[in-house]
Amino acid sequence: MIYTAEDIKSIVSEIIENRKSEGGIDSLYFVGCGGSLGALYPAKVFMDRESSVLRTGWINSNEFVHSVPKKFGKNSILCVACHQGNTPETVAAAKLGHEMGAAVIILTWKDESPIIEFGDYIIKYSFDPSVDHLGNKIDHGSDKVICALLIAAELLAMTEGYDHLPELYYGRKKLTGIIEDAREKLMGRAQAFAEEHAADSFIYTMGSGASWSSAYMESICIFMEMQWLDSAAIHSGEFFHGPFEVTDENTAFMLQVSEGSTRELDERALTFLNKYARRVEVIDAREFGLGAIDASVVDYFNHTFFNSVYSCYNSRLADVRKHPLSTRRYMWKVEY
Amino acid sequence: MIYTAEDIKSIVSEIIENRKSEGGIDSLYFVGCGGSLGALYPAKVFMDRESSVLRTGWINSNEFVHSVPKKFGKNSILCVACHQGNTPETVAAAKLGHEMGAAVIILTWKDESPIIEFGDYIIKYSFDPSVDHLGNKIDHGSDKVICALLIAAELLAMTEGYDHLPELYYGRKKLTGIIEDAREKLMGRAQAFAEEHAADSFIYTMGSGASWSSAYMESICIFMEMQWLDSAAIHSGEFFHGPFEVTDENTAFMLQVSEGSTRELDERALTFLNKYARRVEVIDAREFGLGAIDASVVDYFNHTFFNSVYSCYNSRLADVRKHPLSTRRYMWKVEY
Repeated sequence: MIYTAEDIKSIVSEIIENRKSEGGIDSLYFVGCGGSLGALYPAKVFMDRESSVLRTGWINSNEFVHSVPKKFGKNSILCVACHQGNTPETVAAAKLGHEMGAAVIILTWKDESPIIEFGDYIIKYSFDPSVDHLGNKIDHGSDKVICALLIAAELLAMTEGYDHLPELYYGRKKLTGIIEDAREKLMGRAQAFAEEHAADSFIYTMGSGASWSSAYMESICIFMEMQWLDSAAIHSGEFFHGPFEVTDENTAFMLQVSEGSTRELDERALTFLNKYARRVEVIDAREFGLGAIDASVVDYFNHTFFNSVYSCYNSRLADVRKHPLSTRRYMWKVEY
Repeated sequence: MIYTAEDIKSIVSEIIENRKSEGGIDSLYFVGCGGSLGALYPAKVFMDRESSVLRTGWINSNEFVHSVPKKFGKNSILCVACHQGNTPETVAAAKLGHEMGAAVIILTWKDESPIIEFGDYIIKYSFDPSVDHLGNKIDHGSDKVICALLIAAELLAMTEGYDHLPELYYGRKKLTGIIEDAREKLMGRAQAFAEEHAADSFIYTMGSGASWSSAYMESICIFMEMQWLDSAAIHSGEFFHGPFEVTDENTAFMLQVSEGSTRELDERALTFLNKYARRVEVIDAREFGLGAIDASVVDYFNHTFFNSVYSCYNSRLADVRKHPLSTRRYMWKVEY
């Protein structure tokens, strides 16, 4: 059976019920590769910050199967993300989780794929059509990032307790409207960005907190994978402890200024860049109204906001550089 | 009072004893900035993998003070690393930890500094003289990385139990000899590397597991900070999920092939690079005998091995590029 984001509350409840006689659920591990791993990061940060009892982990699939945490087993939930359901390392991770008796939740975008057989629950998520060109209806509140977040929050609420579920669901409802507005407003800036950076060979992305991962995904999945540009994702708080020494008037930066608890880290980076850099693209979540989401939970919505507005930039950049986002030289083409 | 690595067992024991009446110690947080944060990563991975009960976190200092984990408090140990003891964000983190009643352990290299007053225990670590040019006697088994690892392992052994302390202390004893031999053997390769990359503007580092962090530190502290080269640290397992698309015959890589559980991830990256790249510097921990350390703990020694042999490369690169490692344009020079 294929579930959706709407089923997460009952899925988590069922897992807890089923594990009662075996000591309950005491840990939640997030495992994936590349963009699918990045998408699970906000939920991991949520667990790190909000949970007092449950253990968590956020691990690349291949690293996970080679060095399974001692704690992992029948009292664990393994949440894996796998877009097409056929990434060999993530299939192996789901298989291992299944064999070790964990409750395996698979976030995927396809109804059928090799990974399906190893999942206790298959959740089909919403996916941004401006990236996949298939024209699906957008519901950013049901993308894989938010699915993972809901799994974490529901698990927390049902075990040790969590006070901000209403704010979280309200934020989820607001998200799509905020993103759609922002995309419209950003079209002009995205075109200018694409023209400015058409001949570049290198660009840094930067972010902090639970949305560092959208900077990571933009860097590795878009700039490196889909545009063959050299790139690195810098944490805004780490910037001042090494990375900032590369800054000069030619260095290109794409900076996320987030809404929420780590905003000051991003603002500090912006102040520095405004002084010493010349080629900085700033996306400020506050400018586009993400602050309408309650302060208790807004941190965890920045990732989807940034990740979703990036697609304006990505399509413009691909067009101007005449390098379609679908172009690959190794992925799915050679053995590796 | 200033302690050393030799005092860690008694420090951890004293903390546990002192917290007994308040519910004991249930968490160990690692906090720092840049290279000091990177150095705490192996201990964090150790906790993630080996512990079943204690919570852990590995957080940039400024992010930590802006979004303190809910769990953090009087039942926590806060382990911060701060080389000169004056990094403002890390001083703020130690101060916050002190105010919130955590047991604060400070790993530092100086006897006196602003951070000292916020520490319950000040541990002075060994520091590699080939980096700081002060000619101190080298003891790699007492650097900040190993100090943090010993804190984690002793805490684990004294609370939930840990079976491999003897192997860990044996590994610690072997480390300096292995590194000294490797450095001698690598001198020629380091010189060739420096000449090969003298005119480059970009270089990737790559690693996996508990030693991903030495690739991170080489990237942000040496290439970016001390050589003003653009750079990124790639996780060997993540490489195949985006980053590898940038590979061509000109792309420069510095690849760590680790000893231990995630070695296969690094070897897979090497196989790919041998086929599609031309400019790859490989440092293989096995070639230099790190395998003499027991398989149960060897993962946690790769970081110090790589980090310490990098200094051969760093000094050669700085000489050939005529860009001394001490050159800065922003750090300690402008306000930020």
